[in-house]
Amino acid sequence: MKWSMIATWKMSYDGVNKGVCLLKDKKSAKDAVLEAIHAVEENEAFHSVGYSGLPNEQGVVQCDAGFMDGKTLQAGAVGALEGVIHAVDVAYECSKGRFNNVLVGEGANEFAASLGMKKENLLTKESYERYLERKKENQPLSSYDGHDTVGMVVLDQQGHLVSATSTSGLFMKKRGRVGDSPLIGSGFYCDDEAGGAAATGVGEEIMRGCLSYETVRRMKEGMSAQEAASSVVFEWTERMIAKKGYCDAISLICMNPSGEIGVGTNIKFAYVAADSDSNTEIYVALPKGKEVVIRKYDSKIDDLD
Amino acid sequence: MKWSMIATWKMSYDGVNKGVCLLKDKKSAKDAVLEAIHAVEENEAFHSVGYSGLPNEQGVVQCDAGFMDGKTLQAGAVGALEGVIHAVDVAYECSKGRFNNVLVGEGANEFAASLGMKKENLLTKESYERYLERKKENQPLSSYDGHDTVGMVVLDQQGHLVSATSTSGLFMKKRGRVGDSPLIGSGFYCDDEAGGAAATGVGEEIMRGCLSYETVRRMKEGMSAQEAASSVVFEWTERMIAKKGYCDAISLICMNPSGEIGVGTNIKFAYVAADSDSNTEIYVALPKGKEVVIRKYDSKIDDLD
Repeated sequence: MKWSMIATWKMSYDGVNKGVCLLKDKKSAKDAVLEAIHAVEENEAFHSVGYSGLPNEQGVVQCDAGFMDGKTLQAGAVGALEGVIHAVDVAYECSKGRFNNVLVGEGANEFAASLGMKKENLLTKESYERYLERKKENQPLSSYDGHDTVGMVVLDQQGHLVSATSTSGLFMKKRGRVGDSPLIGSGFYCDDEAGGAAATGVGEEIMRGCLSYETVRRMKEGMSAQEAASSVVFEWTERMIAKKGYCDAISLICMNPSGEIGVGTNIKFAYVAADSDSNTEIYVALPKGKEVVIRKYDSKIDDLD
Repeated sequence: MKWSMIATWKMSYDGVNKGVCLLKDKKSAKDAVLEAIHAVEENEAFHSVGYSGLPNEQGVVQCDAGFMDGKTLQAGAVGALEGVIHAVDVAYECSKGRFNNVLVGEGANEFAASLGMKKENLLTKESYERYLERKKENQPLSSYDGHDTVGMVVLDQQGHLVSATSTSGLFMKKRGRVGDSPLIGSGFYCDDEAGGAAATGVGEEIMRGCLSYETVRRMKEGMSAQEAASSVVFEWTERMIAKKGYCDAISLICMNPSGEIGVGTNIKFAYVAADSDSNTEIYVALPKGKEVVIRKYDSKIDDLD
């Protein structure tokens, strides 16, 4: 049976390869997505997710994550979670119950502790130094800086889809700020009957359009995955520009129930994809009018994370 | 010019009357909705919103609120906010910026304090006694108990729409649990070009369907407000029952850009409506097959909050 995987940003490459091994072995989309996101969360080199994430304006790393199971439509999320490397695991655990599917702040920390998750210091020396530098510069929050959410959509050989996200959010955000990543329908959405989606970019721009839900909905109506993702990002970008003169960065990945993928973006955006017919590969997507131009990543000309 | 207002539950009656005065006076939908929700948040008799709200399992009142402006599509929300009576004001303030539109936990408390909002004890003697009783009973969380969000949609004489929500959430929830009320697209959504919506019921059931967004979207596609709200709730209820054997309580109110209202519900549900042609009135909506039967509230036969 076909399996397929798509993930935001180049940093997902190693994780996707781990997920791919599980999918080939007929493991579930859930197992693959958690394993793949763990690899990103653990990696000290990536400053927008988990360990070594860039902190908020008070110097504290607060993470957001979301998880949705396309078979059951059970969804879970955590916001402003502190000291837990695998925020996506907490989101997954939240998705299991009938109630309390979204937990934030101290309550999310408590829940993670009740699951036996170790409390750790996520702020590395390098991230802290970047924080001190930024404080010295005393610049306002910029629209595209250190908010690269890892988002993934996975189809397993059993025909089930899962979407998940994990991020340390916007660098220098206010304490308690959550972006789109833990918001069901904005940062992620998944439905076996329609498809799955996940978003990255400026959460505040994504959430007011419920862009992941809208992308999945368009696939349900019969649009191809590529058409759904690119039309959603293109239309929302146009609308925001008409409304307020600009649109912050938005990138969306999606997959339909057949494992076909789609990408929408209003910036230069890298993603990783693999399926039963193609090896893991990094691609670059570029908006061009109402279209998205896609090509393989080339380290000689691309400097994307 | 026409103005119109719809609000969840009987408890909204006094607040709606206050909002109506402002709308008649050509004040904005934002002013009307905040004034109206304040009245519910302040009222000690209502245990599901603001002051005297029922606490979480640790005996702490944590409130959620959302606000969305249909003209600008700016949205704001707070989750697990403590000690602030007018949670909806904090959500509104969050909606103003380019970033940090959703704040949770300690960060939300800090932001409210930075706005000069007084920190107060929201837990009343009566709410605390109900908490102690419930703890003694040692019962599991039930599906429909003390989670009556106040949600409102308002059209002003300038032709602008606003949606907003405020709630203390599910009685005996886990610390940090947020329901649909502060989730854009789930608990509330608003777009001058399409309409506005707000939800009440079990947040966990509402959020995985993005039901407020979907209702607004259907109005944009040309459905009447009543058709949009009732079809969304009916279809989601059917889907949840097919998926897991039951569907928790969901009620939705909405309004199109002409001020026409709609109500969808899978339980007996009371709401308050008023517009430039009709006085403030409490109505009762009942699901009957795929339809919603609506009649005026009658205190002799109805015992709804």
